Formats: sequence, structure tokens, C-alpha cells
Amino acid sequence: MDTYTAGKGTPKRPLPVALDAMGGDKAPAALVAGALLAVRGGTPVVLVGDRDVLGPLVPPGVDLPIHHCETAVAMDDSSPVAAVRSDREPSISVAVRLVAQGQASAAVSCGHTGAVMAAGLLRLGRLPMVERPAIMLVVPRIDGGTLVILDLGANVDCRPSQLVQFAVMGHAFAHALIGLPVPRVGLLSNGEEPGKGEQRVRDAGRLLAELPLNFVGNVEPTAAFKGACDVLVCDGFVGNVMLKTVEATAEVVGHILREEILRHPSAKAGAWLLRPALRRVRERTDYASQGGALLLGVKGVVVVGHGRSDAAAVRSAVVYAARCAAERVPERITQALSSLCQP
Amino acid sequence: MDTYTAGKGTPKRPLPVALDAMGGDKAPAALVAGALLAVRGGTPVVLVGDRDVLGPLVPPGVDLPIHHCETAVAMDDSSPVAAVRSDREPSISVAVRLVAQGQASAAVSCGHTGAVMAAGLLRLGRLPMVERPAIMLVVPRIDGGTLVILDLGANVDCRPSQLVQFAVMGHAFAHALIGLPVPRVGLLSNGEEPGKGEQRVRDAGRLLAELPLNFVGNVEPTAAFKGACDVLVCDGFVGNVMLKTVEATAEVVGHILREEILRHPSAKAGAWLLRPALRRVRERTDYASQGGALLLGVKGVVVVGHGRSDAAAVRSAVVYAARCAAERVPERITQALSSLCQP
Repeated sequence: MDTYTAGKGTPKRPLPVALDAMGGDKAPAALVAGALLAVRGGTPVVLVGDRDVLGPLVPPGVDLPIHHCETAVAMDDSSPVAAVRSDREPSISVAVRLVAQGQASAAVSCGHTGAVMAAGLLRLGRLPMVERPAIMLVVPRIDGGTLVILDLGANVDCRPSQLVQFAVMGHAFAHALIGLPVPRVGLLSNGEEPGKGEQRVRDAGRLLAELPLNFVGNVEPTAAFKGACDVLVCDGFVGNVMLKTVEATAEVVGHILREEILRHPSAKAGAWLLRPALRRVRERTDYASQGGALLLGVKGVVVVGHGRSDAAAVRSAVVYAARCAAERVPERITQALSSLCQP
Repeated sequence: MDTYTAGKGTPKRPLPVALDAMGGDKAPAALVAGALLAVRGGTPVVLVGDRDVLGPLVPPGVDLPIHHCETAVAMDDSSPVAAVRSDREPSISVAVRLVAQGQASAAVSCGHTGAVMAAGLLRLGRLPMVERPAIMLVVPRIDGGTLVILDLGANVDCRPSQLVQFAVMGHAFAHALIGLPVPRVGLLSNGEEPGKGEQRVRDAGRLLAELPLNFVGNVEPTAAFKGACDVLVCDGFVGNVMLKTVEATAEVVGHILREEILRHPSAKAGAWLLRPALRRVRERTDYASQGGALLLGVKGVVVVGHGRSDAAAVRSAVVYAARCAAERVPERITQALSSLCQP
């Protein structure tokens, strides 16, 4: 039997990260390749998925066990909760269950975000005081600081009270994990004046102003990336559109730049000289390659990778997940939440 | 008396564009400078604003009349409707009123968007069959096509029926003004599957599927910019955040590029050779300089310029407004709406 058994006979070995090897646009090849990169870098991984599919992709002699699982959630599955609950448990859910059972330190999936959310809720459960988990990304700001953004797609049609919860969780993460003494919390809006924004944003703003948080009010996207706040809170629909607009714009700019370079003969030489700088620009704006997003608010570490993740992005997500587990993110969020809610 | 009187004694002269010279971050200097550029290019303009402020900015001998108006709407005014209705009518409202009274072909403001909307509704009124006007922008796609996006901020907390109205207006504009025989209409969402999106998007999708429109379903930002649809429909809150995220990302990419160029000595030479291409990239991604947005659905042409507009952007907005008036956009939208609603 080639299912994963580490941890039973080798108690001192660090727990592996459980990687859903069947989820993502480039699954399974990019997932296995990313896992191999992580393993070679010293992060143990267990692949979750069909052993008949995955086995041939793992080179002999590499310590990359496979936890067998026959089913996976399709990217267009409209009832992920049902998929996770079904008798034929999909790979996303199995990966998260290994965390709940203490057989893995963290779970990573580049698959169906709704299914990751469902698996997190059903297999791990919510942290105390958390109403809804949120998907959180940590990105570099252009002032050199760090911006925590949530929710990026776990919850649509949020109530104002849920936005407040995201603010509290984001504050707890920024304080406990990034080490900011007093993180500035902002609400994503279409204008910085308090009267701006949709109804839920205006209502959430009133609720946040009453909490012992450093709430800086409404923040527009440009201001957020320039440093107006450390934690940017939004409904998952708006947040996801914002994130995908960042990707779209970076792609459009790159496309137009290529077109213009081909049009100007002297620019070709310039582009050649600029190549290292342009590569760094791509790396610094490709948030997917920087580790993936964290499902914040469940009793365990679950990282949501980008659906389009290549091997390098998968490796980043696995390494990020292992780091969040080593840093005991869920426990520290719980501590921060209880100290914030009982001042 | 130096108020604007053209049109009374000179009936054959083309009507000027009424420009709110007091609205915008760089008002009044950039507004007057932009008006001068437009006038020199052959587009007549009448400035609306305080003659004591504007008069000294207009060089002697230039045909740029001032329609005197003492008040303006502040960018942080929380009750723009009240401002427009007050006895001391602000410059935005006066500019729109000149259109309603046949003294101007179109109105342009780079000021308070809510006040532009209020002035459009109160001074011009809605077109037949239009429930709520929307702010519409026409941007180039990377496949060479054109993307019509609405609403970009006139309406937050839209009902599904309002999204449907925006779709119909956008379709009418793309058909009548861009000349697309069968424009493809998409709903901005966080995933292309029909089950994705917030409640209003899912409900609007069901309503749109029943109309005689070429509705292509949910569209993500990247797909939209690549050519998945010709008309992209969204709630004004989400649309405004999306638009501002495009600006933010372009700014972030530019900032990082500058940083990386300064870091690599060879890149400096490359950047110099690339300058013409980089300038074109900036021009092609700076939607503000491409004319401004149209307040679609009122009985007259009203263009909303970017708050940060400089003189070149103001000139573009004025020229775009004159073109929309010459093309009789409101009349043609009305025709298209009635043919679409009575098949």
C-alpha cells in the first residue's frame, strides 16, 4: 500500500504539507513538479490524488509519497459543499482532512476556491469568534511596506458584520505575524470620504469606528498600494475582481510594451538591455508566484494557490504553507482575536 | 456683462461645449489650459465658473467666453443633489443647464461625479425607458477591439434590473456608435461559470438570458480586456474599484520599473532607447487621457472627466463631448433602445 504513512513510525520527522495534486489549470504535471522543487528545498510534501496518474510523474528515489484519492472537484463544479460531503471524497477535502487528523502540517490547493473553503469549514472548522473564514493575500506595497488584503473571494454578498470580522482577522495577522504594533485598517471603496461606497461598506465603516482598531476609513486602490493602510478589507466579490484586474492590467501593459518594442527598431536593443529589470518587474507584480493566499479563520493552515500556478508558484505556495504552520498562524490569530475582543 | 451670449446673435456658429472650469483636482488652471487647447483645435468652448478667477487665466484675444457662476461643488460634498438644487447653482449644474437650454452642445466636468449625475438627472432628465443613467467608458482591448464598460460609478447598490438596463444601453451604444452589428454583452464577475458572482450578478444573468441580446454570460477582467465581450456590465461600486485598480496597477508597474532601471546600470541605457515605446504604453493605458466617460441615459451629452485631469486630458474630454454631440448619441441611444425593447 503506497498511501501516506509518515508520522506513525517516524515521530520526530516534520509533518509534510498535503498538496492537492489534482486541482489547478496545469494539474497534475505542474503540481508534481512544484512539489519536487519544494521537497528538494527541504519542505516535505505528500501528494493527494490518483496514484495511477501521479505515480509515473514522481521520479524514483524521491521522497514524495502519494496519498491515494480517486476523485477531484472540477473547476466548474456548482455545488462544492456537496462534493466535499460526498462518499467519494475529493482530493481537496482529503488534503485538508490530513491536516485535521494531524498527518499534515498544512494543506495547499490550486483548485476550486469554493471547494477549498467548504473543505476548510467542514474538515477543520472555524476558529473561536470567527463567523466566516476569508481568503487573505499579503502583497508588497510600493512604499516598501506590506499590504494584507481580505476577502479575495471566499465570501460574496457579505454582511457588514462579516467585513468587520475580516478587519479584525486581518488586524490580528498584521499584528501577530507581520509584527506591526498598530496596523492601520482600511475599507476598500470608490472614494475616501465616509459617505462613499456601497451600503455594506458605509455600514461596516460605522461599526469599525466603534472598535478599538486603528481604522483609517475608506481607502481607494491606488492609495492602498501606496501605503494608506496595512490591512485592506473588502467583500469577496469586489476583492476577487480587484485581484483579477491587477493581473489583467499587468498583462495588458506587458502586451502593449511588446507591441511598441516591435514597432520601434531602437527599442529592441533597449528591451534587450532592460531584460533583467523587466523580469524583476514581472516577478514583483506576479502575486501568484509569491506564495498564494491563506484561508484565514479555520483551525489549520490552508493555502489557496492561483488556478494558473506553474511549478514555481506551486513551490512558493507549499513553502508559504509550511511557514504559516511553523509560525502557528491559527493559534496566534486566535490569541490576537481574543485579546482584541476582550480589551 | 461678460456672460456667455453666443448663439443669440450668431445662429449658424456651432454651439460650444460648456466646461465646468471649477471642478477637478487641478482646477481652474488645467481646465482653462485644456479649454484653450480645444479652442485652438477648432472646438468652441464656454467656461462655466467665477469670472474673477477665470478671467485672468484667459489670454486676451482668445475666443473663450466665461459664463459666470460663483459657486462650485466641493469634491467631498456629501449631498450633491442638494447642492445642484440650491439657489446658488454650482458650476457643474450650470454647465449641464446650458445644454438643456440649447446654449451648449455638451457639458464636461472633472468634478464631483455624484453632482454631475445629479445635474444630468435634474437639468436634462432621463431618456425614455431609462431607469438610471450610467457612467460609460470606451477603452481599447488588447485584441485591437473596443470595450464599452458601464457603470463606472454613477450607481452603487444596483438592483439586477438596473444592470440589465446598463446592458441594453451599452448594447445600443456599441451597435449605433461603434458600429458592431451584434455586440457581445458580458457581466463582470469573479468567475465565468453561471453560478459565480454576487446575488445581483446571478439574478441579472438570468434576466439577460431572456432578452434578445447576444449575452455571453459572466466575464472576468482579463478575459474582457482580451476580447471576450464588447460590452462589460457592472455595478458602479465594483466598476469604479476596477477602474481605479487599473490605474493603481499601471502606477505600481511604472514605479517598480523605475526602481529596477535605477538598480541595473545597463538598464539605464535600455530605458533611454525604450523611451518612445514606454511613452506610448503610458498613453495607451491612460484611459483618462482618452476622453473621459459618458453619462449615458440622460437627454443630452455629459462627459465626466477624471478628477486628476491635466490640460491634455481636459482637451480630450471636450473634443470627445463635441463628437458625441455631433454624432447625436442621446437620440441614437433612444432609437436603439426602442428597437431593442420592441422587437
